[in-house]
Amino acid sequence: MNKKIRVGILGATGMVGQRFIQLLDGHPQFEVTALAASERSESRSFQEACAWKLTNPMPDWVKTMPLQACQTPLDCDVVFSSLPSSMAGEVEAAFAQAGYPVISNSSNHRMSVDVPLLVPEINAEHLKLIDVQRERRNQKGYIVTNPNCTTVALVLALAPIQEAFGIEAVIVSTMQALSGAGYPGVASLDIIDNVIPYIDGEEPKVESEPRKILGLFADGAVTPADFRVSAQCHRVNVSDGHTEAVTIKLKKKATIADLIEVMENFQGEPQKLNLYSAPNRPVIVMKEHNRPQPRLDRDLEKGMATVVGRVREDNIFDFRFTVLGHNTVRGAAGAAILNAELLVAKGYI
Amino acid sequence: MNKKIRVGILGATGMVGQRFIQLLDGHPQFEVTALAASERSESRSFQEACAWKLTNPMPDWVKTMPLQACQTPLDCDVVFSSLPSSMAGEVEAAFAQAGYPVISNSSNHRMSVDVPLLVPEINAEHLKLIDVQRERRNQKGYIVTNPNCTTVALVLALAPIQEAFGIEAVIVSTMQALSGAGYPGVASLDIIDNVIPYIDGEEPKVESEPRKILGLFADGAVTPADFRVSAQCHRVNVSDGHTEAVTIKLKKKATIADLIEVMENFQGEPQKLNLYSAPNRPVIVMKEHNRPQPRLDRDLEKGMATVVGRVREDNIFDFRFTVLGHNTVRGAAGAAILNAELLVAKGYI
Amino acid sequence: MNKKIRVGILGATGMVGQRFIQLLDGHPQFEVTALAASERSESRSFQEACAWKLTNPMPDWVKTMPLQACQTPLDCDVVFSSLPSSMAGEVEAAFAQAGYPVISNSSNHRMSVDVPLLVPEINAEHLKLIDVQRERRNQKGYIVTNPNCTTVALVLALAPIQEAFGIEAVIVSTMQALSGAGYPGVASLDIIDNVIPYIDGEEPKVESEPRKILGLFADGAVTPADFRVSAQCHRVNVSDGHTEAVTIKLKKKATIADLIEVMENFQGEPQKLNLYSAPNRPVIVMKEHNRPQPRLDRDLEKGMATVVGRVREDNIFDFRFTVLGHNTVRGAAGAAILNAELLVAKGYI
Amino acid sequence: MNKKIRVGILGATGMVGQRFIQLLDGHPQFEVTALAASERSESRSFQEACAWKLTNPMPDWVKTMPLQACQTPLDCDVVFSSLPSSMAGEVEAAFAQAGYPVISNSSNHRMSVDVPLLVPEINAEHLKLIDVQRERRNQKGYIVTNPNCTTVALVLALAPIQEAFGIEAVIVSTMQALSGAGYPGVASLDIIDNVIPYIDGEEPKVESEPRKILGLFADGAVTPADFRVSAQCHRVNVSDGHTEAVTIKLKKKATIADLIEVMENFQGEPQKLNLYSAPNRPVIVMKEHNRPQPRLDRDLEKGMATVVGRVREDNIFDFRFTVLGHNTVRGAAGAAILNAELLVAKGYI
Repeated sequence: MNKKIRVGILGATGMVGQRFIQLLDGHPQFEVTALAASERSESRSFQEACAWKLTNPMPDWVKTMPLQACQTPLDCDVVFSSLPSSMAGEVEAAFAQAGYPVISNSSNHRMSVDVPLLVPEINAEHLKLIDVQRERRNQKGYIVTNPNCTTVALVLALAPIQEAFGIEAVIVSTMQALSGAGYPGVASLDIIDNVIPYIDGEEPKVESEPRKILGLFADGAVTPADFRVSAQCHRVNVSDGHTEAVTIKLKKKATIADLIEVMENFQGEPQKLNLYSAPNRPVIVMKEHNRPQPRLDRDLEKGMATVVGRVREDNIFDFRFTVLGHNTVRGAAGAAILNAELLVAKGYI
Repeated sequence: MNKKIRVGILGATGMVGQRFIQLLDGHPQFEVTALAASERSESRSFQEACAWKLTNPMPDWVKTMPLQACQTPLDCDVVFSSLPSSMAGEVEAAFAQAGYPVISNSSNHRMSVDVPLLVPEINAEHLKLIDVQRERRNQKGYIVTNPNCTTVALVLALAPIQEAFGIEAVIVSTMQALSGAGYPGVASLDIIDNVIPYIDGEEPKVESEPRKILGLFADGAVTPADFRVSAQCHRVNVSDGHTEAVTIKLKKKATIADLIEVMENFQGEPQKLNLYSAPNRPVIVMKEHNRPQPRLDRDLEKGMATVVGRVREDNIFDFRFTVLGHNTVRGAAGAAILNAELLVAKGYI
Repeated sequence: MNKKIRVGILGATGMVGQRFIQLLDGHPQFEVTALAASERSESRSFQEACAWKLTNPMPDWVKTMPLQACQTPLDCDVVFSSLPSSMAGEVEAAFAQAGYPVISNSSNHRMSVDVPLLVPEINAEHLKLIDVQRERRNQKGYIVTNPNCTTVALVLALAPIQEAFGIEAVIVSTMQALSGAGYPGVASLDIIDNVIPYIDGEEPKVESEPRKILGLFADGAVTPADFRVSAQCHRVNVSDGHTEAVTIKLKKKATIADLIEVMENFQGEPQKLNLYSAPNRPVIVMKEHNRPQPRLDRDLEKGMATVVGRVREDNIFDFRFTVLGHNTVRGAAGAAILNAELLVAKGYI
Repeated sequence: MNKKIRVGILGATGMVGQRFIQLLDGHPQFEVTALAASERSESRSFQEACAWKLTNPMPDWVKTMPLQACQTPLDCDVVFSSLPSSMAGEVEAAFAQAGYPVISNSSNHRMSVDVPLLVPEINAEHLKLIDVQRERRNQKGYIVTNPNCTTVALVLALAPIQEAFGIEAVIVSTMQALSGAGYPGVASLDIIDNVIPYIDGEEPKVESEPRKILGLFADGAVTPADFRVSAQCHRVNVSDGHTEAVTIKLKKKATIADLIEVMENFQGEPQKLNLYSAPNRPVIVMKEHNRPQPRLDRDLEKGMATVVGRVREDNIFDFRFTVLGHNTVRGAAGAAILNAELLVAKGYI
């Protein structure tokens, strides 16, 4: 058996950091060898510093691991980052400069022209940006990012439609889970018996990231796809699982059956390469009239699928449907781990 | 002081029936003299038959009132109806035939060509349909309806925009309160930690009613307004107050300031006539970046206003904004009572 | 490999029926061969008749199984019953009379003098009541019951204490989950932003069942334990997992360390016999100052353990602590299945 | 008309500070002339610094008031304090030393031997401690405190029982509202689908304060009542309103009817003096089998009453019942204001 790849986690005590640990527990390729967090936590054990909030208990092996500062060197081959954006920009760049592959869930570098915004089922081709990045920045390490949690769920549903019929415009209204705001995040008094019609910084991400993800790589750069996205983002009283109401205008004619068919048949590199964390069905289309629902459907495919439902014709655009994605699994830690698995398979790690 | 108008309530024990009783408690023009409900409740006192669910305690005067059958005659001058649609069609028609003005919150007759779908601030002119109705049906009584709870909140925001700039298309995604489903309504196990992306029969109502409400009366009929509406309706874990994410395309150019101005200045017959239940401001525009929120804002103007927030430009259509309305006050019982007050002022009662 | 024991489920479409199906999916000893439900569901497939409410998806094998009437004969070797108490009394007696072992989660027969109220870790000895029952009722079949969901969690914590130190009195205040009321059960409008300080029929069960369970079998009968229980039961906004605040008076002196030790070391027949559904630790004692919590701890030992926390001295009685149990797993379907596994091991099935 | 008494609020931006402002809006005797908060807020306007969380909108008059430092002098005749306990000890003592009457909701000074822990219906006599305090501390100002939110609700129900029958022991298990933890307070991820069986510092308060409140003043000191209290405190998903399950042992015999009678007839100085914020009925006893409930009953008597229900015999102690109190009205700001009204009536302000 091969030796496992050694992983460091930046921002290990946060909500996404905890998901990294849970999802890497028993992973066949990776083993966690270093944990880093903010200065406040430094030199404490993980168990002391972390308010563990997942329903799966904290794995034993992580409890006594010490928390280190978020700076090089760390005893690992690759770093996973879920740092807050106030720190991620500089810290991730420093690790990449020091030679580490940085698999980031943070937003800071997502839109940089030489950084892949990777969804392995969709744009594995964009990994070629790594070479561009290394050359431009004159470094051996590199940064690869995954999209915003709301974007991932949406773009997995959009990708097969874009490929088959071309997308002209997307209007999306989201109902997002509490865990998306981290911990402590949303105050209970703000969400009991309530909806908050605003999430700081969210709408611009949802409106820009899909275009880069679905863009074409050519001549060392990604040209964004030419459709437009309009997003209105809301926080609702749900623990995990973002629900999104999508209305879509296509370039070519299609039927409901066409749409469902391309989504259900959608497969990408992770499925072909049989990556460990790859969902069998990246897009699941439910036929029940009142699904998907976050509590019932967020854990399908272990939280790695986008679940689509209520696909129907629209009377202004062409179609509308509901999208559900697990925001801290496929929308964050799971996305980063799948990215890392692809990087291994492609020889980048 | 004039003698009060005697009111009968059909469906008195339901969620909307309870709101009728609460809002008519102490009303200067109306007094409740008859209560009717389904057969199950007949001949019991209101207190015995009703699972009172409002936070305002049940008024004393209603406790010992007997529940009667939903059939003529009832000892009253006018009936308010919040019957379930399985009963409302026939029962309301029978009361109108027997000479009663029927102020209905039920959906059955809303789209009938000779029945006003009334929002007093918007289409008081549509009351002329009463004469058409009386003549066509050869009866002295008549039916007047108020819109669906989601529609009222939306259309109050749309009316001033339609008048000033013309509307081409509206895409709306709703997050609706539990009380909209009546009692017992939504099971707690269905909504805890969850969103339900479907409400039976709701979307067609939201897509058709605004066009009739904003339509023009001429030659004895209402011609629907010519814009299109696309609605996706969701249930969320909120007791009262529907939140709606609206994206809108206009016929004429406008600025954000224009939109806010026409909404804030919107006034109609209820304000001019100083009707008892009329909100001072039918449309309130909030400037805070994260408002309106149902728990904080649903009771503004005693629940009779539409609260608008986050008015901003859209990158596909022209504008988008958030709308909030109290679904059992302005969206149901309060709407019907305001309708009745207008009917009194106009001499129809 | 042995042929599996064929199981029929009475009340298959309810919340506990669904748990039976989920927990029997892949069970090494049992296979479900018959489903029965109320008349309303008869002759429909399970998928058509059942509003599946578990987060684990409905197993494929159950979807097309037909629902039969709740009457003999059913094509099975043993029946599991989670019928409502309005039906369970007669139906279960009829199945036992017809020769079936009836493993019941219903309350009707729990306190009958010849029916075991079984918690396998505690009173496996009570199975001898089966012989008494068969003889008295002159039948080959029999009824074995498991306790009320609140009782199971409590009594697993009490059993080691009773054995070691003797219990004089127990005062318990519960905070019970929504799933305990079945589906649709508690209306969402009743529990949002609320606590309901009453659960129909619950307190008498919690006050009587523990004494029978911890009673001694001798001369063909169980003599109830001589302590007293006082219970106040509340419904709170939690999906699964009953939390209980316990204050306890002992007969002998003990220290906190003593109490924790006997609870942590508690083992019974299921552990000795290594039964399939047996928790390794029937009682888990948490040391954190703010645990157990239903969302974080209800699934420990796959929902089959009682989780105890905050063990501390009391200033009126001797000790107090918090108890948590999964009400539809160890508190219902899981309890019945463990009972059946013990019956198989002891040769009764 | 007399000139109003000028009030300063220490901790004006917190949850209780907001309640002070709401309850003093339109008060006939007091007007707010100074607001103080932590250093972070200083020199900002109230509107800028305060995250207003009440459903009643922020009064206009408070919006532009500047926030000052929590130090003397403040332009007012009396200060109301809801400072966090980390600040309250020193700051309140300093204001009293500087000559201000300090009406405090903070816990720091509650158990001091020369500080009244005042519930005006119960122990107006304890105001004589003010003279003791002034003399001992050689100051003109003084501190008067109100109890912890859980204690107030409980002790109002206990007082008439203690007077009539004598109390031997009280075991109480609480289900407490989110607003009791202030803002942001409890994280939404901690309470969704959950109960937290621990509230920092709460149980010792509930176990000690009632004995002082119900103690006798004689010879310049309060001798605590001689009953014992055992409390287990839990946080549940409720916005406002603490529910408490009480089991009680009496010194003299009583019937259920006796208990209800003394509670319903309970009146004290606020009722006799007809104080502005006094509830007509300080203790309301509900007869319905499933009340009180926080959402439905917390606002009875404008949140100034204790609501009792389910009074019934206990099978270990003598009686048990459910208690509900509004934790930020009668349990905090409303209690302090009622205290101030009594102080005015008795000539201390």
